[in-house]
Amino acid sequence: MIIMKLRVRCLGLDAGGKTIAIINSENSRELGVRSLERIVLKSGSKKLTVVVNVSDDFVMEGDIVVYNEVKDLLKLRNGDFVHVAARPDLESKMYIGKKISGQELSEKEINVIINDVLSHNLNDLELASFVTALHINGLSMNEDYYFAKAFIGSSSERIRFPGVVVDKHSCGGVCGDKTTMILVPIIAAAGLTIPKTSSRAITAPAGTADRVEAVAPVIHDVKRIHDIVKKTNGCMVWGGSLDLAPADDLLIQIEKPLEIDPLIIPSVLAKKKTVGSRYVVIDIPTGPDAKIKTKEDAERIANRFISVGKKVGMHVECVVTKADQPIGFAIGPALEAKEALHALMNPNNAPKDLVDKATSLAGVLLRMVGKGDKRTAEKILFSGKAEKKFREIVKAQGGNYNIKPGDLDKKIIVINVKSKKSGYVSYINNKILIRLAKLAGAPKDKYAGILLKSKLGHKARKGEVVYEIHVENPAKIGMVKKHLKQGDGILITGKAMKMVIEEIDHIRKK
Amino acid sequence: MIIMKLRVRCLGLDAGGKTIAIINSENSRELGVRSLERIVLKSGSKKLTVVVNVSDDFVMEGDIVVYNEVKDLLKLRNGDFVHVAARPDLESKMYIGKKISGQELSEKEINVIINDVLSHNLNDLELASFVTALHINGLSMNEDYYFAKAFIGSSSERIRFPGVVVDKHSCGGVCGDKTTMILVPIIAAAGLTIPKTSSRAITAPAGTADRVEAVAPVIHDVKRIHDIVKKTNGCMVWGGSLDLAPADDLLIQIEKPLEIDPLIIPSVLAKKKTVGSRYVVIDIPTGPDAKIKTKEDAERIANRFISVGKKVGMHVECVVTKADQPIGFAIGPALEAKEALHALMNPNNAPKDLVDKATSLAGVLLRMVGKGDKRTAEKILFSGKAEKKFREIVKAQGGNYNIKPGDLDKKIIVINVKSKKSGYVSYINNKILIRLAKLAGAPKDKYAGILLKSKLGHKARKGEVVYEIHVENPAKIGMVKKHLKQGDGILITGKAMKMVIEEIDHIRKK
Repeated sequence: MIIMKLRVRCLGLDAGGKTIAIINSENSRELGVRSLERIVLKSGSKKLTVVVNVSDDFVMEGDIVVYNEVKDLLKLRNGDFVHVAARPDLESKMYIGKKISGQELSEKEINVIINDVLSHNLNDLELASFVTALHINGLSMNEDYYFAKAFIGSSSERIRFPGVVVDKHSCGGVCGDKTTMILVPIIAAAGLTIPKTSSRAITAPAGTADRVEAVAPVIHDVKRIHDIVKKTNGCMVWGGSLDLAPADDLLIQIEKPLEIDPLIIPSVLAKKKTVGSRYVVIDIPTGPDAKIKTKEDAERIANRFISVGKKVGMHVECVVTKADQPIGFAIGPALEAKEALHALMNPNNAPKDLVDKATSLAGVLLRMVGKGDKRTAEKILFSGKAEKKFREIVKAQGGNYNIKPGDLDKKIIVINVKSKKSGYVSYINNKILIRLAKLAGAPKDKYAGILLKSKLGHKARKGEVVYEIHVENPAKIGMVKKHLKQGDGILITGKAMKMVIEEIDHIRKK
Repeated sequence: MIIMKLRVRCLGLDAGGKTIAIINSENSRELGVRSLERIVLKSGSKKLTVVVNVSDDFVMEGDIVVYNEVKDLLKLRNGDFVHVAARPDLESKMYIGKKISGQELSEKEINVIINDVLSHNLNDLELASFVTALHINGLSMNEDYYFAKAFIGSSSERIRFPGVVVDKHSCGGVCGDKTTMILVPIIAAAGLTIPKTSSRAITAPAGTADRVEAVAPVIHDVKRIHDIVKKTNGCMVWGGSLDLAPADDLLIQIEKPLEIDPLIIPSVLAKKKTVGSRYVVIDIPTGPDAKIKTKEDAERIANRFISVGKKVGMHVECVVTKADQPIGFAIGPALEAKEALHALMNPNNAPKDLVDKATSLAGVLLRMVGKGDKRTAEKILFSGKAEKKFREIVKAQGGNYNIKPGDLDKKIIVINVKSKKSGYVSYINNKILIRLAKLAGAPKDKYAGILLKSKLGHKARKGEVVYEIHVENPAKIGMVKKHLKQGDGILITGKAMKMVIEEIDHIRKK
């Protein structure tokens, strides 16, 4: 292997957390590396694998420009010398090749790959190739298990909560899903511990963390989360900065832009395991527009979740739920938070699907730990206990205990979308609603979004408002209206069309 | 879609030909893009898709730092404003998804993808995912053809040579293969036109362009190549800068580091077609250590080359050749050039395998155009006509007509590798030889490499030198010797072991 001594130049460049260095094209040829490949820098006893950029004239031969991250990690100064070599042949590349060729990976091979992921030894091309191979060739039950174990092992800190720790996860794919905001207080009020971490929206108009943030801060460190949960039995916080399964997080950065998630099962289970969950209910929204399209697919995934969960020591149950239209009527952070708060305060006047979904999932958890069932969950919700618990959690997270739905209103611009004819709402194109809500400003503009006035089966008159689009920033009206012309996403037909071929909600898999 | 007006800052950063811009993380969140995704910049009527980097503090909110390439293409100055938007949804992403899911792509879909490759709209993750999917799911005959057509269509300039244009390509995978340096002069001396372009070594100790460069310059522009071929009927130049199939070149940049080449057939055929080749012979080195391992694989690829070649209007024949040991005795640019020159001057004393391979492949080409066969090729070589033609080509490319093998010697350090016991050379580990030759300095150190003293079947005495390692730079001796201790790659057995299970050279497929 060729090792080269290069002189360091620090230019104050920031790589957004990545470790990058730039060398001259002559040196890169000599090292045998191309742009975006990896090189290993050595300074004293410190060693770091970094992404290499190559330049013909920005960097002179013999020099190496390091970004701030590299400078800090290796404690370099201008004029220092570092030893530079191409990244050595990686064993993990061989195993990635093995997976590409359709073979099953052993536990040892998966561990070698995960170690190289954590050390940033594998570059983006290799990682993209790997997750694509995982997606195409699929994972065996054992592979799911070994990945889950490796993800759990990659966690630097485990959080231990008191009591019986339970959790809920949704595989996603249905918009307006504020179930978590109802479920967490029900479960916490029932005396179970539910340290719920959630994500922000990336391609959706709102993630659970965005919704909760409309009523309380969601960014807390591990110690604070521990305090909140100790005080209230639950929390609803952003999980993004907790480093619960860093190897998984690094792979997710590759999977997300490719819109594939072959590691969903180990990924979800590892994150639940590292916070000490013993009972987990998984919501699998299923429908023709959703990520999981058929009941058969949902059942296959459900069985896998249950089996792999068992192997890592968790009791998992899955619920297949409908994903043919938004849950409730509201889409967008504040609109959804308001709908959830309203449902907690007045469950009798709340959207039936939202209440049904939240109490069904909560019921599964209660039954799993022998503390009741859906009826128990309903009682907790309808008695006002869930509302009280919600307020306690909001307060513990730094929000206002006495928050009212009206506090979540703001002066906004409303665009009314009207039915072009009379008839029945037979199909709701969720993708169009999502796009319009995002164009309206959600989730960045907290009060922007969509408020449905009709759902599937509703008999609409011509000219009736079928939904409102809420816009905070007037500059966004033009784009919304332009896209609206291409279609509003609501199909009105003469007869009440039955879009759902088979009712597949609440089928539990053993 | 969100469009943002950002103020340009030019910092004189060079991205090595890539188009990159850096924006603040707040702006990236608002645009909905992550680091390394694409954004579209608009300035006046000019539009450019660039890679986005995201920074928390290096770039202020509202600013955009552009690399020199972007600055030049959009003619930007410090303080200018550009309109920035996320790359719109790409149709091609849908088709990549289609291929990932195992479906066949139509001609139109392949063209859409290739257009986005050429416009740099697809990012590295997407391209890596795509070529991995092509590799795993394979290409249909039609897909090979559509890719070949699209690659040919992406070429901005076609070169037209006089006479009957023929060409040769090797799928690679065998080291020390200097066949081209013998074949090109034979074919050119026979009156055919052979404008041979070659690549440099990337993972090997020498590519044909590196070998030829030991005797003549290989970097020439299209006009000069045209002149060389007009004068001599042939050339042996570097193809890297000719832009013969730019879409293919962009995909190769992704495939090479991943060590897969799913597009080899369209890639090779497009490059031959764009220089006007009508008859092409493809060498498919096959052996347990080579890229193509079995005769069945070789035949499958051969049939594909022939059929797709026919569809794009070329007569293609394939020759399956042995790849169980180096061709000839020399490995490394100058050592190989010397061996080739020697073989042209004294074919009777040349390595039999080298002469046989070169005249066999040349014979196929001659037979294809009705100008003879292997015997004809041998006559041209043994009569000295090939040597004369070689010298003409060397001179036309700017080298010395009277070059002698001794001119290719240089004072070097020789490490003798000796047989540890008496017996027969039964197995040569090509990978170990390649690694040692590279550690010795090849191809960067032109005179470095390996000179075999024995090949398969040779009866070696204990202590006899089985090969020499030539080192130019004394600093490299330590590393060579260190690796040598792990194995010299030569297996000596008591009996003459027959490693080749079946003779599969020179089987032509119709």
